[in-house]
Amino acid sequence: MPRKLSPEDQWWCIDEKTKKPLTFKGLKDICLDTTEICYIDAHNSKLYYMGYDIETLAAKSCFEETAFLLLYGRLPTAKELDAFKSRLKAERNIPDDLVELLRKLPDDVEPIEMLRTAVSYLGNLDPERSDLSREGIYSKAVRLMAKVPTIISYFYRIKNNLPIVKPNNELDHAANFLYMFHGKEAPKLWVESMDLSFILYAEHGMNASAFATVVVASTLSDYYSSIVGGIAAIRGVLHGYANVAAMMQFREIGSVDNVEKWFKENIESKRKRLIGFGHRVYRSYDPRARIFKRYAARFAEENEEIKRYYNIAIKLEDIALRSKLAEKGIYTNCDYWSCQVYRGMGFPVNYYTALFAMARIVGWTAHILEYTENNILIRPRLYYTGELDKEYIDIEKRSYREAEIKL
Amino acid sequence: MPRKLSPEDQWWCIDEKTKKPLTFKGLKDICLDTTEICYIDAHNSKLYYMGYDIETLAAKSCFEETAFLLLYGRLPTAKELDAFKSRLKAERNIPDDLVELLRKLPDDVEPIEMLRTAVSYLGNLDPERSDLSREGIYSKAVRLMAKVPTIISYFYRIKNNLPIVKPNNELDHAANFLYMFHGKEAPKLWVESMDLSFILYAEHGMNASAFATVVVASTLSDYYSSIVGGIAAIRGVLHGYANVAAMMQFREIGSVDNVEKWFKENIESKRKRLIGFGHRVYRSYDPRARIFKRYAARFAEENEEIKRYYNIAIKLEDIALRSKLAEKGIYTNCDYWSCQVYRGMGFPVNYYTALFAMARIVGWTAHILEYTENNILIRPRLYYTGELDKEYIDIEKRSYREAEIKL
Repeated sequence: MPRKLSPEDQWWCIDEKTKKPLTFKGLKDICLDTTEICYIDAHNSKLYYMGYDIETLAAKSCFEETAFLLLYGRLPTAKELDAFKSRLKAERNIPDDLVELLRKLPDDVEPIEMLRTAVSYLGNLDPERSDLSREGIYSKAVRLMAKVPTIISYFYRIKNNLPIVKPNNELDHAANFLYMFHGKEAPKLWVESMDLSFILYAEHGMNASAFATVVVASTLSDYYSSIVGGIAAIRGVLHGYANVAAMMQFREIGSVDNVEKWFKENIESKRKRLIGFGHRVYRSYDPRARIFKRYAARFAEENEEIKRYYNIAIKLEDIALRSKLAEKGIYTNCDYWSCQVYRGMGFPVNYYTALFAMARIVGWTAHILEYTENNILIRPRLYYTGELDKEYIDIEKRSYREAEIKL
Repeated sequence: MPRKLSPEDQWWCIDEKTKKPLTFKGLKDICLDTTEICYIDAHNSKLYYMGYDIETLAAKSCFEETAFLLLYGRLPTAKELDAFKSRLKAERNIPDDLVELLRKLPDDVEPIEMLRTAVSYLGNLDPERSDLSREGIYSKAVRLMAKVPTIISYFYRIKNNLPIVKPNNELDHAANFLYMFHGKEAPKLWVESMDLSFILYAEHGMNASAFATVVVASTLSDYYSSIVGGIAAIRGVLHGYANVAAMMQFREIGSVDNVEKWFKENIESKRKRLIGFGHRVYRSYDPRARIFKRYAARFAEENEEIKRYYNIAIKLEDIALRSKLAEKGIYTNCDYWSCQVYRGMGFPVNYYTALFAMARIVGWTAHILEYTENNILIRPRLYYTGELDKEYIDIEKRSYREAEIKL
């Protein structure tokens, strides 16, 4: 006879006080570990990398310096920053076989899904792929940070029948990426914005993609597997794909005159979920959103398309924050504004998640290094609610309604 | 001036009783969710899939039936099982472009790392890749379950300069895989063992790879991304690569006469970690290990090489369980015995993790379906122990010891 378990059988999941199972779906407010990498001050609208305020880094640092900070735990000297930039430049080229693979991919593949395959393939080609030492991880991180901009640029140009443009080692990370992508040197505002977006997206605590990365790394899997795990997770619309979804929403609204009507018909009526608002951690304005908003405003000054999105965004923010949503302490998030900055730099919408990922490789790597220094395999439990010891009935004697399963 | 946080600033992590931060590195005994898929009775040496005892399934079921059970929640009727087998057979072929990619991969790539790339690439080629509906996930799961044996066989044959052998639709899943891999129909014991290993490895609760899969799926990422996350995690030696490591250990010991000496020199002296013993969840003999051990014994009867490993294994188990290790309630695990069965079926050692993964796709899919039915993004927290508001010193004025970082 099938039987059910009693709560004592799964005692490790039973709350001492209530005597009921205590499950943590989503792991909200479960603290995985201690960290020195990142602090999100959710109530005071602050974000820190290694103790430095993100506002300061956005104003004074560059991507390479911020990456150095996150990887090595302190800011570089001038000599170290030079050496780090040189290492990145030396690693920008990608193997011909990978270029060939990019050519073979269907035109309509999401760039972030292309990146998942490309990074996995790069791992296959790297003779040092299995080296799990800290030095080995630093080398491979530099390699990947340097090559991913090339991969994304080449993919874009191949799929748009444009000649690929080789890396230009006169240019730093952000400027070179824009140069390879667009085939010419980018305006000053673009370079500044690209660098800024790399800084702001480089790290954000134990978010879902960092967590996927660390879950993989905790099995002592190789570095590329861990990063591929991160890319796999960032692709979801509840994470990195939100910046694509936010831009699609601005496009759907179309014009500032339509915001009110659109909000009534879609959000108030609950036909759609409002995108670009709220965050699992922040209970105040996301500091990154504040900075991206300033840059979106700058693009809006010189670009009619961005001006349209920006005005829609301002109006929608105003309406949403005066609606019932605001009672929950909800604000516009980072993606709501960064998508306009990305558009301002001339990127097609579906590339935005890949642009996010190329920055976040730094944060993922920092978390791999920190978590595995005293590694423990990550393996949670589940509370079983089904029956046990079901009778295995011979196949001829089973009487199920076949219509219920579509085969 | 840099400042430190007080415990109240991170109140959500502070234990009410002790007033100290409560972190759960490894998430040991943290219950993520409820489940009806799998129950591990850690103290009574039992494992259940959907309420059926694994011993019963091992004795009476076949892989296709067990996969149906895990995916659809109940056993199939004869008609349903036929239809399910037909769907699998219809999906066995892989695209030429993927075969081309397999040819281009370096000869020494780990098969499990090859599989990570191949599955990611298959996702790029699948026009239905973004369909997150349950029906869509079922279709893609069938597609992947059917194609992965072909991918692994083709890779093996290409890298060994053997002609590839197309799927044989006269044969069921296990028999066809052995046929494609070895290029001829396999002996009865092999087919039976292959099928058994697929059943025993199909599912095992919220282990690290299932968890990586679910973390990815919880962002509403696509199915292929989720599975790639699982493959990335299973590659680690604390997870799926353990069956490779276990065989390497038997090979290192070499002969039954060397077991005692090897144990003294390597394990008692703590020079090495003993592989193939212990499991995060089980506090008694792993029921899968018990079954695999019986099959290993059968191979040992007819194969001198397996006889050697089997005798080493028996002796090593005896010594280890009489040593200090045994006090912790430690037993041989599944990988300790399955690696001998895999070897018995003629697989090269580094393929074992991929063989494990091909079975586990079923369990990963079941957990994606179950977890995302009422989805919550998985995002834990970290407890920040560093300083805040560090002063950003201009680069020329920084005085760090440059020797401490190797660039």
